[in-house]
Amino acid sequence: MSAVAAVVVHPADTVAVVVASVGGRAGQTLADGTALRENVPLGHKVALRDLAEGDPIVRYGEVIGRAAAAIPRGAWISEALVRMPPAPDLAAMPRTRRPPPPMEPLPGQTFEGFRNPDGSVGVKNVLAISISVQCVAGVAAHVVERVKRELLPRFPHVDDVVALDHAYGCGVAIDAPDAQVPIRTLRNLARNPNFGGETLILGLGCEKLLPERLKDGDATADIVRLQDDAFDGFEAMVQGVIAAALPRLERLNARRRETCPVSDLVVGVQCGGSDALSGLTANPAVGFAADLIVRAGGSVMFSEVTEVRDAIHLLVERAASDEVAEALIREMAWYDAYLARGGADRSANTTPGNKSGGLANIVEKALGSVVKSGSAPIVDVLAPGERIRTKGMIFAATPASDFICGTQQLASGIALQVFTTGRGTPYGLAAAPVVKVATNSTLATRWRDLVDLDAGRIATGEASLAEVGWELYRLILDVASGRKTVAADRLGLHNGLALFNPGPVT
Amino acid sequence: MSAVAAVVVHPADTVAVVVASVGGRAGQTLADGTALRENVPLGHKVALRDLAEGDPIVRYGEVIGRAAAAIPRGAWISEALVRMPPAPDLAAMPRTRRPPPPMEPLPGQTFEGFRNPDGSVGVKNVLAISISVQCVAGVAAHVVERVKRELLPRFPHVDDVVALDHAYGCGVAIDAPDAQVPIRTLRNLARNPNFGGETLILGLGCEKLLPERLKDGDATADIVRLQDDAFDGFEAMVQGVIAAALPRLERLNARRRETCPVSDLVVGVQCGGSDALSGLTANPAVGFAADLIVRAGGSVMFSEVTEVRDAIHLLVERAASDEVAEALIREMAWYDAYLARGGADRSANTTPGNKSGGLANIVEKALGSVVKSGSAPIVDVLAPGERIRTKGMIFAATPASDFICGTQQLASGIALQVFTTGRGTPYGLAAAPVVKVATNSTLATRWRDLVDLDAGRIATGEASLAEVGWELYRLILDVASGRKTVAADRLGLHNGLALFNPGPVT
Repeated sequence: MSAVAAVVVHPADTVAVVVASVGGRAGQTLADGTALRENVPLGHKVALRDLAEGDPIVRYGEVIGRAAAAIPRGAWISEALVRMPPAPDLAAMPRTRRPPPPMEPLPGQTFEGFRNPDGSVGVKNVLAISISVQCVAGVAAHVVERVKRELLPRFPHVDDVVALDHAYGCGVAIDAPDAQVPIRTLRNLARNPNFGGETLILGLGCEKLLPERLKDGDATADIVRLQDDAFDGFEAMVQGVIAAALPRLERLNARRRETCPVSDLVVGVQCGGSDALSGLTANPAVGFAADLIVRAGGSVMFSEVTEVRDAIHLLVERAASDEVAEALIREMAWYDAYLARGGADRSANTTPGNKSGGLANIVEKALGSVVKSGSAPIVDVLAPGERIRTKGMIFAATPASDFICGTQQLASGIALQVFTTGRGTPYGLAAAPVVKVATNSTLATRWRDLVDLDAGRIATGEASLAEVGWELYRLILDVASGRKTVAADRLGLHNGLALFNPGPVT
Repeated sequence: MSAVAAVVVHPADTVAVVVASVGGRAGQTLADGTALRENVPLGHKVALRDLAEGDPIVRYGEVIGRAAAAIPRGAWISEALVRMPPAPDLAAMPRTRRPPPPMEPLPGQTFEGFRNPDGSVGVKNVLAISISVQCVAGVAAHVVERVKRELLPRFPHVDDVVALDHAYGCGVAIDAPDAQVPIRTLRNLARNPNFGGETLILGLGCEKLLPERLKDGDATADIVRLQDDAFDGFEAMVQGVIAAALPRLERLNARRRETCPVSDLVVGVQCGGSDALSGLTANPAVGFAADLIVRAGGSVMFSEVTEVRDAIHLLVERAASDEVAEALIREMAWYDAYLARGGADRSANTTPGNKSGGLANIVEKALGSVVKSGSAPIVDVLAPGERIRTKGMIFAATPASDFICGTQQLASGIALQVFTTGRGTPYGLAAAPVVKVATNSTLATRWRDLVDLDAGRIATGEASLAEVGWELYRLILDVASGRKTVAADRLGLHNGLALFNPGPVT
């Protein structure tokens, strides 16, 4: 009987993770001779030596918990056997930085993008209609449908028309301390590179969020207000919005892709529906590709505060400056306080799916999650909704909620997102292509038309981490250049935007 | 020169409100002889006597503020001249009830509705697809489109197919103390009377909000999960959802409207984009119609905590029992604490549109808002998302945000909503008809295809309050019976749902 396929990431680890697609069976052995004492599901942990109650359980070279009872070698370490450690103490955390050495540049890398007046580069050519309040969403949806049906055929170089629908803008505490988060998010969302600097702003007229606040200082965007006296009923409103859209469509339609250096590309990375393979296959492959983008001079944003919180000591070490280190800690502390106000903490992150996928707790999930950020120095930290201002590896603080993270990263300036999933989600964004990477081949096979890349081949040994990493990097450039279409766009699967509003509604 | 049209609601009032559509001009006089010292815009207040600094400014017989400076008779009382009083002190508030005498019954009132297995009665016959997490929203939207195009033509008695899209379900603190609010809202939303007890639940498989929690104890609803092993890719998922929808469409299609007593009707009332006429025309007309519905044995829900907070002493007096009085105060206190956690208070409610419309502050707005509840005893108080359990006039505690209030009232069981607006909003709901009532004839004329009833005729003297109130009541029954279609449905203007989630996201 051959050894059960299992992975040990770090020499100090006291556990292995079973990666055999059918799991491990009692009596089978691992490569190191550990005999399984019971059946162990795919993605779950096996003790590599006898652990006494209270002994550290080590994975990724980090303590992910303490044994809740004695665990003999070869036993399945189920969630109940892992006592979660406290979160790293932010106040007492050493600020010692050990930034990795500069990486070898990867010169001459390019993609075909749409260069914008502000210097950013888009990977799609989309007319966006930003709304200052949800009241106008019905009219915006009607206009989008009409423009798609009646006008887009005349503008073949415009990829899409998208309404930036959201529930903010009125019925909210617009002067509350945290209101700056959704407001700057909406303002920066309108400036996403895929919108070509042509975003149209649609307002009502009596809302709390004045449409002017969504307008960039020197942008050409003008504002249409439905309560304008000039609009004599519904059709007049619709015609008013279409009249404002027309010159924008004409200008967007005149644009063409041009060869741009990868240093102009901004990619967001995110995971959702994670399992224990996430940290072994898809997330490291994303980290590998992220390093390539950074080496080529480009930018990668990783996010998801609650999935970073328990690995923050590892990220602080990677900070490129003392300011970045402090900013990392500041964003963690802000979120700790936000959760505490609502009677929760970072342990609220893990899902039933994570747990049945083999992730015992948020510590284990976080260690597998931050791998997406690769190994480059972290050069900047963005508070929720802030716009990118530095090239390189960036931490954009956002909630981990897939839709909120996606929305916030769009505001921070990503042109494309890479999304890893183990359990599977049909997630997609209308504003930017989402490259979906499966952590396991079972999902990639079953959802073959919903997944763009199978990183499960790393676990099965069919491909190396570097091979899948390079494959992902090339896929990113193909999608960014319009040469390939992602599954979510092919199927038209797009989730609505979901703003992060930490403030109260009224 | 004839007197300027202006309204004084209560003998104790120290102000009149100008209702002449062009406003009042300096030098013109009111009916009581007060000469205007300056131009006064439509909906704004005029001092009926000399007020010293600190004197009470009285409207609706209640103090809406104190004079911030000396205000001579005939002066325009702009927002800046009104010092806002503190909110009524909940702890010290007398619990003295003075419930109005029982109202004269209005027997024999009926409408044509769809009777449901649970005894509730719908006014539409809609197939709803409830989702346990936003991840599946793209697939749900695709299914809705396919069902509308391919299947609905075969089911002519089914009015619509609607996905109950929302941003809750995962990436949220599902065990936080306040999580019960969005969870029970979603559960009760699926039970809305317009869905005929046939709501289909669509889940992902790894989400925090287990789809079972959306299922009513003994409902026949089954659950489709996209991560189900049986679904071999996208088309299989879509076919799986459609297969579950088909028997539901067949059962819904077999239903017919039947004559039901008005005592089976549940109507929600709400206002949005209010102006100073709201409290003089549309809201009193809604209150009049609400009294008629209650007299006919039916139920009316009013809501919007921050627009009730400053008039709570008037509502406590109307409580039908000590329990109801305590529940009213409890909901106000809960919301006070919720707002305070976010660094806000009830004054965050008023909008720029309210203020330019003549509403000086939340006190004045609240006094004009609660008028929608008519004069019946208040028989029950629902916490956010709770389902109706008593017939009569009910306070359903919800935020005042139009979309959140609409969503929460749908969960609480309304089959139809009446919505008053002064500034104008194209608001609509896919799940229930929304009867839009304009507070002024200018809006009703300009937006003639977006408004269902012009209550501005009360201000111009073209119709009495009772006439418009009866007209609205008959319109409600016509819409509830499917004899008339509201403007929002005719134009297909529907806002997305917006859950009230007072808890944190992760």
